[in-house]
Amino acid sequence: MAKRIDSTPKKDGYRMPGEFEPQRQIWMIWPERPDNWRNGAKPAQRAFANVAIAISQFEPVTMVASREQYANCRNMLPPEIRVVEMSNDDAWMRDCGPTFVVNDKGCVRGIDWDFNAWGGLVDGLYFPWANDDAIAQKVCEIEGVDTYRTPGFVLEGGSIHVDGEGTLITTEMCLLSEGRNPHMTKEQIEEQLKEYLNLEKIIWIKDGIDPEETNGHIDDVACFVRPGEAACIWTDDPANPFYEEAQAAYKTLSEATDAKGRKLKVHKLCLTKKPCLLSGAETIDAVEGTLPREDGEVCIASYMNFLIVNGGVVVPQYDDENDKLALEQIQAMFPDRKVVGVSTKEVVFGGGNIHCITQQQPAGR
Amino acid sequence: MAKRIDSTPKKDGYRMPGEFEPQRQIWMIWPERPDNWRNGAKPAQRAFANVAIAISQFEPVTMVASREQYANCRNMLPPEIRVVEMSNDDAWMRDCGPTFVVNDKGCVRGIDWDFNAWGGLVDGLYFPWANDDAIAQKVCEIEGVDTYRTPGFVLEGGSIHVDGEGTLITTEMCLLSEGRNPHMTKEQIEEQLKEYLNLEKIIWIKDGIDPEETNGHIDDVACFVRPGEAACIWTDDPANPFYEEAQAAYKTLSEATDAKGRKLKVHKLCLTKKPCLLSGAETIDAVEGTLPREDGEVCIASYMNFLIVNGGVVVPQYDDENDKLALEQIQAMFPDRKVVGVSTKEVVFGGGNIHCITQQQPAGR
Repeated sequence: MAKRIDSTPKKDGYRMPGEFEPQRQIWMIWPERPDNWRNGAKPAQRAFANVAIAISQFEPVTMVASREQYANCRNMLPPEIRVVEMSNDDAWMRDCGPTFVVNDKGCVRGIDWDFNAWGGLVDGLYFPWANDDAIAQKVCEIEGVDTYRTPGFVLEGGSIHVDGEGTLITTEMCLLSEGRNPHMTKEQIEEQLKEYLNLEKIIWIKDGIDPEETNGHIDDVACFVRPGEAACIWTDDPANPFYEEAQAAYKTLSEATDAKGRKLKVHKLCLTKKPCLLSGAETIDAVEGTLPREDGEVCIASYMNFLIVNGGVVVPQYDDENDKLALEQIQAMFPDRKVVGVSTKEVVFGGGNIHCITQQQPAGR
Repeated sequence: MAKRIDSTPKKDGYRMPGEFEPQRQIWMIWPERPDNWRNGAKPAQRAFANVAIAISQFEPVTMVASREQYANCRNMLPPEIRVVEMSNDDAWMRDCGPTFVVNDKGCVRGIDWDFNAWGGLVDGLYFPWANDDAIAQKVCEIEGVDTYRTPGFVLEGGSIHVDGEGTLITTEMCLLSEGRNPHMTKEQIEEQLKEYLNLEKIIWIKDGIDPEETNGHIDDVACFVRPGEAACIWTDDPANPFYEEAQAAYKTLSEATDAKGRKLKVHKLCLTKKPCLLSGAETIDAVEGTLPREDGEVCIASYMNFLIVNGGVVVPQYDDENDKLALEQIQAMFPDRKVVGVSTKEVVFGGGNIHCITQQQPAGR
């Protein structure tokens, strides 16, 4: 059913569609690591369930869960959400899952990038990561989707956004990091992305906002709303910890033209008023090989980490003064979609958000 | 996607189709237990692969494999066979997998019987069996097939055969065994089967031929070839160890009428000339809680344990003098199907055969 293809998507006429294009379903991974999630991952599981339920009002969701958590996961989710057993090292389907590509006839294939836990032995977040690295292939296998592999080329889905018409945005901080593809020049990385995602233009933003975790994934900073239009985090308060990164990203995007030669329209999206601070760190197992955690450390809580689904947008909420403003700004970007907020502070405490824990499978034939 | 239904198939208009009706795919489990299979299960894995490959010339096959064996299984099978991760306790999909039922509109549902390793704490073959018991639900979940459950009612797929028109054949030795449903009378068991498989008539054969293992599953003794016609093991050699069981089963079937009032036509199928004897028992891990194994013990090798697939029949072969005769007899029963033999001595050494290690999912809409 699912074969490995030795060609490249560009050669075969496949391209990565924009997240705003029609989707077949959303994939997620059930969280469980007690050395990453507070209180034995129980509050995180509730939050993941709420995200899955919010998405499932728009389209199907498949949650994968380990052997150990399968029964609990099945019991915590409503029956319309499919649960499939799959070993994992943590819960970030955006980054270890496949990147799907489509052709003009509606055929769908998957790209199985190398995954090394955001930096491998250089500055990766856990070891080992073999279960996570196998997830892309296992997902495609279940769906009967043929796959491309990129041995020796490390990429996470959260480090890229495309407009589906030949343009990609990413960050230098991540893609040029020491822990990913240090053997490749920036030009070689560009070539690789163009060949696998079928692109003509890559817009490089310098920095992301979480250097310690994903080395600055784009999906906390900016995304495409539709071809010709992007969204970007924004603050005019110089006291905001992300002021410089937001200003710089906005400037880069505003001055950029896309693959079709269009000057991008850039929508501004607010940041939280207050930083999101970790509490309850003492309920996270302290284990050699994972980052030590402390109460009061700043967790990255970006409203940009929303997910676009069929007819909707699912947006993180943090009990912050700006929650409502973020929903309004996103609604203004997507006037034809229903915008739904989900409280995801628990996901933030684990190191990501709605976009990080999901991966869309595009609609096919 | 997959819901638990509190009704029964009969109430909802669903019935179990005959194995000879159109199928969507075949499910199998990859073998690995070193305390059941010789030489670390490597020869058995080759045999299972050969069975899967033989089936895949007729219809799709999904092989489920544990986390530990996933990569090896994927590498040992051709790409057209789908591999899905699934925890298991051993490799008998016929017995722990779902029994599928269909309705007139082509909707498919699954029955998730209780599974207790062929006798639970009374005379079951291994402990624990929780992973196997969860397989039926996991298979249905992947396919988006709704399920019926039968809490407190133990049944294995290998203990029943149906004609798809209201008739079931089974053995008293198995269904009335102490280790399955001792709290139920024969009449109550009949009622349960009629309600879940949508039957009017149950034909009881007294004994199977493997009392020590499955307590005499029907699928080593007899099956339906098509409505109104059965096949039954046969020998007229009183020295054959299964002479009495074969004679008795043939007599019962020959005298039986089915749910439609038809007198059954019964095709005779030979037994092996020589018994199949275990060798290499010293390469099977000796572990507390599993049956001790010794060289020279008789392994049950019945030609009846074939699988009917779309346009074909896949038949076990044992390097026995009667291998060819069995193929000829089965070809005569199924003149419109291609009959394919596969060498499965290694599967026999583990306690079953082609029918035991497969489960058909009927074609649906």
